[in-house]
Amino acid sequence: MHILILGGDGYLGWPTAMHFSNLGHDVTVVDNYFRRDACDELDVGMLFAVPALPDRAKIWHELTGKEIKVVIGDLTDPEIMRSLFDGSVQYEWSVDSSFSGIPETVVHYAEQPSAPYSLMDYKRANITISNNLLVTNNLMFALRDLAPETHMVKLGTMGEYGTPNVDIEEGWLDVEHKGRKERFLFPRQASSIYHTSKIMDTDLLWFGVRMWNLRVTDLMQGPVYGIETDETAMDPRLRTIFNYDEVFGTVINRFVVQSVTGYPLTVYGKGGQTRGYLNIRDTLQCVTKAVETTAKPGELRIYNQIMETFSVNELADKIANIGRERGHSVEIQQLENPRKEAEEHYYNPTYQGLIELGVEPHYLTDEVLNGMFAVVEEHKDAIRKDVIFKGIKW
Amino acid sequence: MHILILGGDGYLGWPTAMHFSNLGHDVTVVDNYFRRDACDELDVGMLFAVPALPDRAKIWHELTGKEIKVVIGDLTDPEIMRSLFDGSVQYEWSVDSSFSGIPETVVHYAEQPSAPYSLMDYKRANITISNNLLVTNNLMFALRDLAPETHMVKLGTMGEYGTPNVDIEEGWLDVEHKGRKERFLFPRQASSIYHTSKIMDTDLLWFGVRMWNLRVTDLMQGPVYGIETDETAMDPRLRTIFNYDEVFGTVINRFVVQSVTGYPLTVYGKGGQTRGYLNIRDTLQCVTKAVETTAKPGELRIYNQIMETFSVNELADKIANIGRERGHSVEIQQLENPRKEAEEHYYNPTYQGLIELGVEPHYLTDEVLNGMFAVVEEHKDAIRKDVIFKGIKW
Repeated sequence: MHILILGGDGYLGWPTAMHFSNLGHDVTVVDNYFRRDACDELDVGMLFAVPALPDRAKIWHELTGKEIKVVIGDLTDPEIMRSLFDGSVQYEWSVDSSFSGIPETVVHYAEQPSAPYSLMDYKRANITISNNLLVTNNLMFALRDLAPETHMVKLGTMGEYGTPNVDIEEGWLDVEHKGRKERFLFPRQASSIYHTSKIMDTDLLWFGVRMWNLRVTDLMQGPVYGIETDETAMDPRLRTIFNYDEVFGTVINRFVVQSVTGYPLTVYGKGGQTRGYLNIRDTLQCVTKAVETTAKPGELRIYNQIMETFSVNELADKIANIGRERGHSVEIQQLENPRKEAEEHYYNPTYQGLIELGVEPHYLTDEVLNGMFAVVEEHKDAIRKDVIFKGIKW
Repeated sequence: MHILILGGDGYLGWPTAMHFSNLGHDVTVVDNYFRRDACDELDVGMLFAVPALPDRAKIWHELTGKEIKVVIGDLTDPEIMRSLFDGSVQYEWSVDSSFSGIPETVVHYAEQPSAPYSLMDYKRANITISNNLLVTNNLMFALRDLAPETHMVKLGTMGEYGTPNVDIEEGWLDVEHKGRKERFLFPRQASSIYHTSKIMDTDLLWFGVRMWNLRVTDLMQGPVYGIETDETAMDPRLRTIFNYDEVFGTVINRFVVQSVTGYPLTVYGKGGQTRGYLNIRDTLQCVTKAVETTAKPGELRIYNQIMETFSVNELADKIANIGRERGHSVEIQQLENPRKEAEEHYYNPTYQGLIELGVEPHYLTDEVLNGMFAVVEEHKDAIRKDVIFKGIKW
């Protein structure tokens, strides 16, 4: 199968590309280095440097003999998006520069992924909205016009649902109202501009699916943690981007780094904020199952992509315990919440769909955390304490 | 009160500006001529020419002694939006060029308003999404940063709800699910990119209201008909833009023009598509009541802004009857539906809120239709049959 990965340079994109390449698929990755450029601009640092995308692909080819074709381009430009389907694409790196053909599957990760980034100022809010929606819209029109059979696997977020006072279902809600029935998209209400842009993506895809019989799987993912996958572990140069700052670092990754460097674990407010989490290895499993099972024409198939739920207090305690066992001096510090969010709330999401497809969860065990600590400790000297906290408010 | 009207050159914007000016308010209008430029570009024609916005304001001033300040600028540029609140604004026309002060109310009409336009091609879909969302987002941030007390009155659309199989409430739905309760935004599912962009606006405003205590009234309006208001009738040069083509002409306005010019009334498919409609005079009443009553800080107040519902078949019959009485030869022609939409469906929206605020509906009576016919007949020679139908599909 030819699989196109949009945002193939990112934390999830690059491991996903290698994973599918390793499974024997033809893989093309596209990226415009938005994440790297933003990290440079904000000077937030990374735990270790990673090679540029064509260099990563070259190293992958040297090690495995497998080709991942690389396109560098901004997918908010519809002509660049369409070139990936009509064969006029220019590869930045490839072994064989001929077109791989219309992809059977597109994995769409090409979005600005940070809630704090989206709320730094109005310019970055606009960048988040226009980048995320124009990429999704360009992809939707390219599929309609050039590849109507192609399956889109899109990354949504559990944050689209917010924290309602009722159980969260997988994408849909059956409503009975005044004696009549309707099945609706589960109502969405997010707590950042980033998360709201993902709601808007869902609105757009629900339009495209109904109007044009597109095939779409939308994965409502929780915050991901982890550093290694089978493929990134093959060679240090194949590692994925790992951020530990407030803007691009997800909470578990960040707390492990804070523990190692002696920076207090920063809990916002009461710390009862509960979310669903998953290991980066499970992201790969989930996306693989989604790709292998496809969605039907005219189907918006939605899964909640999390494996277990924790409050921030639970995470801080878990990580502090392991950190202390490993000889680090770890403090937990409660800060006044810089965000407007419920600090204690009902939270009961359903997340059975991907398990039923065969995903076998990795849980946040002591062993998993010890593995993360071991990698972070190797890079302890590279950690910059000054970038961890930016004090972004909303 | 100082009232800022974004999109003040449009079909609704200009009559709204004059209406508030006539009521004694200070009015500032902003526009970038998007609608006029699009009409030129698509060569769709207008029933009669209207002066440029500064000229309209000048004529209004000559006739009434009242000032409507005019700003020409693109509100997707956040600096232009912010200049309207921080006093650095440059007026294109005014009597007194000093800043009118922070507006107490902003009426936000500054959006690409056409469903067919949004689906002509992927470029215009992108223009619709980025224009509508960036203007709304820029306004939201400007209010947060510079005018937190200002009331935003935003034009939504009944099309956000689509045609669900349950009664449509005014903005919200109380859900009981597995023994627990939550009040959600009424689930939305639109049938064009334009209508979907309005859903996204609602998502964005619901974020801003919850996070930043903004005051927002969102008016879910149905298709508007009518040519005249008390103020446009004062002088032919004060008339509002009137389109009769498939892209920018709303259905009742278009059917009246088609009847006068002998072009068959084009019913798509079975013609059972039912929507809520209102007279342009009632748009002014509704917006006025919304402005006068304001929303509370942190409130997203939603009204369904329609006065009665009709199927397309009912409209065609009504208009054909009056047309024939006036001596026109009117045919009704059923076309294969170029759109994907339910042609027969349940439709039972609630629309009591604005009536309770004191709006007194004008209905689509024979008298009202005869009044519209009379104006269109005066301009019969100017009607271009070739622009009525464009065959835009989705």
